Amino acid sequence: MLTMNDISVALEVALSYKELNRSAVKRGLSPSDVTCVTPSAGWFGPSEEGRRVIKVQCFSNQGTPNFYMRPLEGLTMTVDIDKKVVVKFTDTGGEIPVPKATGTDYRFKNQKEPLKIKAINPISIEQPLGPSFTVEDGHVVKWANWEFHLKADQRAGMVISRAMLSDSETGVPRSVMYKGFSSELFVPYMDPDENWYFKSYMDAGEFGMGATAMSLVPLNDCPRNSYYMDGIFASWDGTPFVQPNMICVFERYAGDISWRHSEIPVNGFDIREARPKVTLVARMAASVGNYDYIFDWEFQTDGLIHVTVALSGMLMVKGTTHQTVDQMPSQEAASGPLVSENAIGVLHDHFITFHLDMDIDDTNNTFVKVDLVKERTLPGQSPRKSYLKAKRNIAKTEDDARIQLKLYEPSEFQVINPSRRSRLGNPAGYKIVPGGNAASLLDHLDPPQLRSAFTNNQIWVTPYNRNEQWAGGLFTYQSKGDDTLAVWSARNRAIENKDIVLWYTLGFHHIPCQEDFPVMPTVSSSFQLKPVNFFESNPILKAAPVFEK
Amino acid sequence: MLTMNDISVALEVALSYKELNRSAVKRGLSPSDVTCVTPSAGWFGPSEEGRRVIKVQCFSNQGTPNFYMRPLEGLTMTVDIDKKVVVKFTDTGGEIPVPKATGTDYRFKNQKEPLKIKAINPISIEQPLGPSFTVEDGHVVKWANWEFHLKADQRAGMVISRAMLSDSETGVPRSVMYKGFSSELFVPYMDPDENWYFKSYMDAGEFGMGATAMSLVPLNDCPRNSYYMDGIFASWDGTPFVQPNMICVFERYAGDISWRHSEIPVNGFDIREARPKVTLVARMAASVGNYDYIFDWEFQTDGLIHVTVALSGMLMVKGTTHQTVDQMPSQEAASGPLVSENAIGVLHDHFITFHLDMDIDDTNNTFVKVDLVKERTLPGQSPRKSYLKAKRNIAKTEDDARIQLKLYEPSEFQVINPSRRSRLGNPAGYKIVPGGNAASLLDHLDPPQLRSAFTNNQIWVTPYNRNEQWAGGLFTYQSKGDDTLAVWSARNRAIENKDIVLWYTLGFHHIPCQEDFPVMPTVSSSFQLKPVNFFESNPILKAAPVFEK
Repeated sequence: MLTMNDISVALEVALSYKELNRSAVKRGLSPSDVTCVTPSAGWFGPSEEGRRVIKVQCFSNQGTPNFYMRPLEGLTMTVDIDKKVVVKFTDTGGEIPVPKATGTDYRFKNQKEPLKIKAINPISIEQPLGPSFTVEDGHVVKWANWEFHLKADQRAGMVISRAMLSDSETGVPRSVMYKGFSSELFVPYMDPDENWYFKSYMDAGEFGMGATAMSLVPLNDCPRNSYYMDGIFASWDGTPFVQPNMICVFERYAGDISWRHSEIPVNGFDIREARPKVTLVARMAASVGNYDYIFDWEFQTDGLIHVTVALSGMLMVKGTTHQTVDQMPSQEAASGPLVSENAIGVLHDHFITFHLDMDIDDTNNTFVKVDLVKERTLPGQSPRKSYLKAKRNIAKTEDDARIQLKLYEPSEFQVINPSRRSRLGNPAGYKIVPGGNAASLLDHLDPPQLRSAFTNNQIWVTPYNRNEQWAGGLFTYQSKGDDTLAVWSARNRAIENKDIVLWYTLGFHHIPCQEDFPVMPTVSSSFQLKPVNFFESNPILKAAPVFEK
Repeated sequence: MLTMNDISVALEVALSYKELNRSAVKRGLSPSDVTCVTPSAGWFGPSEEGRRVIKVQCFSNQGTPNFYMRPLEGLTMTVDIDKKVVVKFTDTGGEIPVPKATGTDYRFKNQKEPLKIKAINPISIEQPLGPSFTVEDGHVVKWANWEFHLKADQRAGMVISRAMLSDSETGVPRSVMYKGFSSELFVPYMDPDENWYFKSYMDAGEFGMGATAMSLVPLNDCPRNSYYMDGIFASWDGTPFVQPNMICVFERYAGDISWRHSEIPVNGFDIREARPKVTLVARMAASVGNYDYIFDWEFQTDGLIHVTVALSGMLMVKGTTHQTVDQMPSQEAASGPLVSENAIGVLHDHFITFHLDMDIDDTNNTFVKVDLVKERTLPGQSPRKSYLKAKRNIAKTEDDARIQLKLYEPSEFQVINPSRRSRLGNPAGYKIVPGGNAASLLDHLDPPQLRSAFTNNQIWVTPYNRNEQWAGGLFTYQSKGDDTLAVWSARNRAIENKDIVLWYTLGFHHIPCQEDFPVMPTVSSSFQLKPVNFFESNPILKAAPVFEK
C-alpha cells in the first residue's frame, strides 16, 4: 500500500512546485489557500512502468474545510515519490472558475442558523445492566450464541475470524466462517477527460481501509454502551502507530421483530406471540479521502450475519464554467449532474469485494447453486400451467461458480458441508443472500477493469490459498491485473468438498444530485449469510418475549 | 373481499361434513382434533364460473396450536358459501401420515427448557422527554420535517396519504406522495398437485391485510413509546368492528449514521463529524392465515422513505410418507425440502405490489428513466477505453414505463415535477430505489399469473384513475384477470406531465429450510423513495450531533 509517508512526500513535492503557485494565483488564490489530495495513478499500459508515481490535484480551502467542493479544475501533477520530483504538470482549466461553494462547512460549531426541522427529543438505546457481550484478550467477542475474533487490519479495515455459533440443541460451538473481510474496494469514475480518466481507486490495496479509519465519534457514530477497539499498525519505517477507537462493538435494538405469529380468531386460538430482535454489531468507518465507508458486521441470534456498507462523506466534483443546467449542453448535463454552481457531480461506481472463507462445521465444504427453474405441466396434469422447481447443482470447479446475478434466472447460493447432515439428512449450510446490487459495466479490457477484474462477477468461489487474500492482488498499487481473483479463478481448480472461499461483490452506481452537496446523506446496501439446515429447527423458538415492568 | 362470515360459514359447513369425520378417524383423530383453513379457490377457467366457492383443508391440532405443521394431506373440500354445501370432497392422502411435529408449540408459556443462548441483558429505546411526534385528529402524524395522514384500511392494511416534507430552505411543506399503500399481495405455491395447484393467494383482495391484522404486542412487535392506532372496519352485515392496536407509530433509533465525514490528518484538518439517524416508523402486521406480513413505512429527515416488508409466521407444509431425505426421490427432495419428519416445505413466492401515487410538489409529474449506458472512447481520446453515461428518457406513455429490472442494464427511476426547478435548474424529483427483489417466472397465461399480471413487471406507471387502486382489480376473489394493472397499462395512455401513479412490486422466492420450522425467523426486503434534486442541498447538513450529558 501507499504509506502516509508516500502521501506526505507527494504533497510536499507538489506544494513546493512553482507552477502550482502560478496556477493558484491565476485563480485568485494565495498558496496557503491550496489543499491537495493524492489520487492513485492507476496503470494504463506498459509506457507507465518503472516509476512509483502518484497524481496530485488541488482545491481551494478558502473559508471552508470542505475543500473537495472547490476544485482547481484542470490542474493535475504527477509526482515520482521515490525521486521526489514533479514529473508532469498540466493546467488546462484556467477558464474554469473555482466553485464559490458557499455554505459547505459541515462542522456543527460553524452552523449559524439552526436546522429548520421540528426538534427531535433525545432518544437512546439503554441497557440498565450493561451490555451482554464480553471481549476477551482484547479480540474475542462473545455474545448470545456467537463467538468470533475481531481485529483491526491496516488494509482490510476489520477482520472477523473463527466465527462460531452454538448449536441450538447441544450448545456446542460450531464453525461458520474462518475469516471474513472486505478484500478490495474499486471506485471507477466515469469521465475520460485527461484530469479524470485515472480515477479508478482500489482503496484497500492502495490506501488501506484501516489506515484511513479515524476514531469513531461516540454517540454519533456508535450508540451508548459501545465498546471501542484500537487499531495498532505499522508506519512506513516500522514504527507502530495507534488508530484509537477505530472499531466499535455494540448491541443493536431497532424495534425490529425476530419472529412473530398471530392467529385470527376464527379457529378459536387466541395467540399473539412476537419476539424482539437484538443483534450485535461490529462497525468501523474508513475515510478514504473524500468518501466515508461505514462497515457493519451484524450478528443475529437466529444465525444470520448481515453485512452492510454505508457510504457518506464528500463527492468528487468537477469544476465547470456553467452556473446552471440551462447553460449546459444537454449531454453534459445528463452525464455529469450539476450539484452546485460550477460544480458537477461526476458519475461513479463503488464495488466492495468480500473475502468470505466459510467453514461450515469444518473445512470440507461445497458450493451449491440451487436454481429455481420454471417447469410446465403436462396436458391434463393440472389446472396450473407452470410452477417452479429447485434444482441443485454442485459446483465441481471454479468455472461452475462464477456468477452474474439475474432476476429472471434466480438461484440460491449455498455453502454446505456434505458430511454434516441434519437428523432429516439435509446438509448443514449457509446461503449468501444478495440485497440491492450493481455490476461493473466497463469494458473487460479497460485498464481499471482489468486490474479490478474481481468485479466481473458478483460471486466467485476459489479453493483456499494463502496467497489469495486480496482480490486485486497482493501489490495493488500500479498493478497490471495479472494477480487478481479473475486470474486465479481461470485456473479452474477443483472446489468440491474442499476448503473454499466465497467472494461476493456489493456494488453501487452513483449519479450525484443536489442532496449530495456538500456532504452526502448515507446510502447503504447489504448482503446476508443465512443458515440453511444448519440448525435442526428455528434456533430461537424458545426466546423469551419482553414483559412490561 | 371474503368476509369473516364467509370464512366462518365455510368452516361450519366443512366441519359438519360427515366424510371429513371419516377422514379424521382414519388418521386416528377425533373430530375435535381437527382445525381447518380456507384457502381461496382461485380461478382456473370458464367451467368454474357462477358459484362463490372456497377450498377447505384441515390439520390436526392435537397437542399444538401450531396445526399448520400437521396437515391431513390429500384432503380438500370445495364449499359453496352461498348455498352452504360441500360441492366436492376428495381425500387422496390416506397413506400419508399426519406429521407428528413435536415441539411446535411456539407460545412462550409452554416452553419447558430455556433457550440455550447466553442471556441478553434488557435493552430498550428510551426517550426521557417522550416521543417527538404528534397525531392530530387521530390520523395526521407530524414529526420533524414530515407530515402525513395515516389510516387503517380493511383491504390495504395501512394507507399513507398526503405525505408532505418541509422545504429545508423555506420551511414550507411540499407534497411528496398523495397516497401510498400495498395494493396486492400475490403468493403462488409451486406444486401442480390437485391439493395444491390452486394455492395462489391474493391476500389483500381476497382476505384483506387490515381484516387479518391483529393487535400488535407492545414491546415485542413495537418498541416502548409507540403510539397505537385502531382499525375500524365494516363487518359483512355492516356492523362496525374494531381491530384494536392494529398500527403502531414510533421513533426508531438503531445506532445508524445519518451522515459523517472524518479527515485523515495529512492535510491539517482535524475533523470528526457524524450525525445519528433517528427515523419515524408506521408499522402493522397482517396474519393472513399461516403467514405474518410486517409492513414498515419509515420516514427519514433527509427525505427518504424506506418501505420494508418482513415475513414471519408458519410455512404451509405438505405431508409426505418420507421421514428423511434419504427416503425421497432426489427430484422431490430438491423441489420440496423436508423441514421436519413427514413434512415438506413447499416452494413459493411472495409479491407485494405497492400503489405509489407520487405528487412531487403538485400533480403534474413525469416519469424519467435515467439509463446508465456504457460508452467507448475514441482512439486516442483517453487512456480509458470505456465509461458510463447517464441518458435521460422521459416516459411519454405507459409502454415506456413497464420495467423489468436488470443488473446489467441499470437505470435510475425518477418521478419529477418538470415545472418545479431548483436554483440550478434541476427538476425536483424522487427516485425509487429497488433493494433485493425477485420476479415471477410463471407462464403469463397460467391462470394465477393472469390474475396477478401486475407482477409481470417490477415497475409500471399509469395515469391516475380512481378505479385503478387495486392491482388485481376491484373484485379479486375468483377474478379472471380482466381488470388488472396489466390490462389498464395495455391501453398505453399518455403519462407525461400528468398525475401519475408509480407501481412497484417487491418479491421473494422462498425455498424453505429446517430453520423455518415450526415458526420462521423474519425475512425482509425493502425499497426506498429518495429525493433527487428535491432539495437545494443536503437538507440535514445543519443537524446537531448528540453530546455526552
